[in-house]
Amino acid sequence: MAAEYQLYCFDKSGNAYKVALMLNVSGADWRPRFVDFMHGETKSEAFRKLNPMGEVPLLQHDGLMLSQSGVILDYLAEKTGGFGAENDAQRREILRWILFDNHKLTSYIATLRFIRAFTERGENEVTQFFEARAKAALKVLNSHLQNSSFAIGDRVTIADFSMCGYLYFQDEIGIDFAEYPHIIRWLADIQDLEGWAHPYDLMPGESIKA
Amino acid sequence: MAAEYQLYCFDKSGNAYKVALMLNVSGADWRPRFVDFMHGETKSEAFRKLNPMGEVPLLQHDGLMLSQSGVILDYLAEKTGGFGAENDAQRREILRWILFDNHKLTSYIATLRFIRAFTERGENEVTQFFEARAKAALKVLNSHLQNSSFAIGDRVTIADFSMCGYLYFQDEIGIDFAEYPHIIRWLADIQDLEGWAHPYDLMPGESIKA
Repeated sequence: MAAEYQLYCFDKSGNAYKVALMLNVSGADWRPRFVDFMHGETKSEAFRKLNPMGEVPLLQHDGLMLSQSGVILDYLAEKTGGFGAENDAQRREILRWILFDNHKLTSYIATLRFIRAFTERGENEVTQFFEARAKAALKVLNSHLQNSSFAIGDRVTIADFSMCGYLYFQDEIGIDFAEYPHIIRWLADIQDLEGWAHPYDLMPGESIKA
Repeated sequence: MAAEYQLYCFDKSGNAYKVALMLNVSGADWRPRFVDFMHGETKSEAFRKLNPMGEVPLLQHDGLMLSQSGVILDYLAEKTGGFGAENDAQRREILRWILFDNHKLTSYIATLRFIRAFTERGENEVTQFFEARAKAALKVLNSHLQNSSFAIGDRVTIADFSMCGYLYFQDEIGIDFAEYPHIIRWLADIQDLEGWAHPYDLMPGESIKA
């Protein structure tokens, strides 16, 4: 029987991981559907029909095909009843950190890591630029986590799943996290959740094509 | 008497413009509060107390101090009853385009425009990199607007205000928009709204410090 949730993803995608982690710690009935990003599948006409934005993750559920990790996380919080907001103020705080993640954290870190780990371009003005921006975002997050266990207080929410998306790829990003001790503590706390797994263990890679 | 809404902003900020435009076309009672970004005000300790993310816009309303344009737009749609979602599907579509804007459109275009218009760095690998990413995002938006009057259909929503934030600064971005005719049409349609004004006319610049 088909799983309830089908997630279009691949193991190197921190954006897909945000959703895979949410599904797994929620104990949802989900199945990954491998997308061969490294060989251009997201640029193919067939994929662009599924998502004109040309990105993973995509979540298929209940006749819907959803894209953008932030939208999917919000949808899953509603469907599963977990890791979401309990009132309007929390809803705004969660959205604030998800937007910060998309605009300042993931946007710079994912690009920096991609150039460093998956291209032969080497260090140049671009990596320098992205590293400076990534460090500024990490500093904001680290300061916030000094006084807050998680993004919006004492419990894990989808804002945490969003922001941690690329941060378990530390060795591929090429930034020493020792400067961000509160981020290290927070990542370890998320890692303690039942159902946590590293992106490379949670989603299929090239060697296990469907 | 103080205005109902107070917006921390400055005329060069497309992110602040997203909110200023929403307030103005909604006919809201609002007043700008000039933030001297170009002279480092957003890096000051006083400003970081207001917003640890160190960014405009900030909206003060009803005892709340809100940050992140996407959060503020969502809040204003709820408060004013205009330009928001009419059902769950629309709410997800609006959020999807606001996230796309934050992750792929504004993030690349704002940075490219900043380097080109406000620094002396000139053209280099960084501007090349950002230009390529910005063009990819513009292409996605242009294709979408070929078959949709606005972001989510036939009426203007906060998703449009978010995405158009930096696009009236065309001459400062240094990308020829002739390749994106549907974006040009869409920008003109937004421009036709009662209350529309260019960012440089809607928000205070350095010459009119409070």
